[in-house]
Amino acid sequence: MDPMAELLLYMADRAQHIREVVTPRLESGQLVLCDRYYDATLVYQGYARGIDIEIIQSLHRMILEDLKPHITILLDLEPQIGLDRAWKEIDSGTRTGRETRFEKEALRFHEKVRAGYLTLAQHEPHRFHVVNASQSERQVRESIISILDAKIIA
Amino acid sequence: MDPMAELLLYMADRAQHIREVVTPRLESGQLVLCDRYYDATLVYQGYARGIDIEIIQSLHRMILEDLKPHITILLDLEPQIGLDRAWKEIDSGTRTGRETRFEKEALRFHEKVRAGYLTLAQHEPHRFHVVNASQSERQVRESIISILDAKIIA
Repeated sequence: MDPMAELLLYMADRAQHIREVVTPRLESGQLVLCDRYYDATLVYQGYARGIDIEIIQSLHRMILEDLKPHITILLDLEPQIGLDRAWKEIDSGTRTGRETRFEKEALRFHEKVRAGYLTLAQHEPHRFHVVNASQSERQVRESIISILDAKIIA
Repeated sequence: MDPMAELLLYMADRAQHIREVVTPRLESGQLVLCDRYYDATLVYQGYARGIDIEIIQSLHRMILEDLKPHITILLDLEPQIGLDRAWKEIDSGTRTGRETRFEKEALRFHEKVRAGYLTLAQHEPHRFHVVNASQSERQVRESIISILDAKIIA
């Protein structure tokens, strides 16, 4: 697929998701939790696929209407360990989605993805919270809870 | 559907179409004929759906890489006559596509579409050639041939 076509499909999906799901819930006072949002687009289509970051940011300005997350949790992990975990889920059939387009990319691609995320985290240290995802599930969960406790309950 | 999502889907389709179909043929010296191109997006999503023309133009700059048609033929017709013709085709099953999203829009929508196209034609009189589509099929065909004769053979 053409990288710009892929980017525009993600943006179409995001525009519809914001309009249909996110905005109505925020307006009714609910808390919205997203698994991936525009940081993922900057990283996968920008840092990793090589599309100009300026183009992606200007697309985001068109669709987001200043809708930025208050808290972003980055689960950080060596790409090889992440891929091993992903393929284990895929092979055992425990993963719900059937899409493996990104898992099939070379390790170099996933290293660019990780470096991209860490760059974003450095640029916005107040929004980003990096959690070491090589820990056990329980430890990862506890790290996340303590971040949310400090940010939301405080 | 969210109008921005619809716009972005058209843009994704266009980016893929340019990369896969149009550019390779132009590079091999062939002549490319498109039924609708970016003028349609400016008119349907911009003039008719109300998305900022600037947004659409900046998306086009991202994907088009200066790829503009040399000749654009606008088949101009009273919207009501055009709709009557379209529904006759749809009802009799002679139309290939099954999409009737635009045909179901109110007459006012189609009037905006027509006015949008005529505005574009006024802005670029060297590229646009307006053909009166209320003529018979034979007359319309002859009008188009004489435009192409003058532009291509000359």
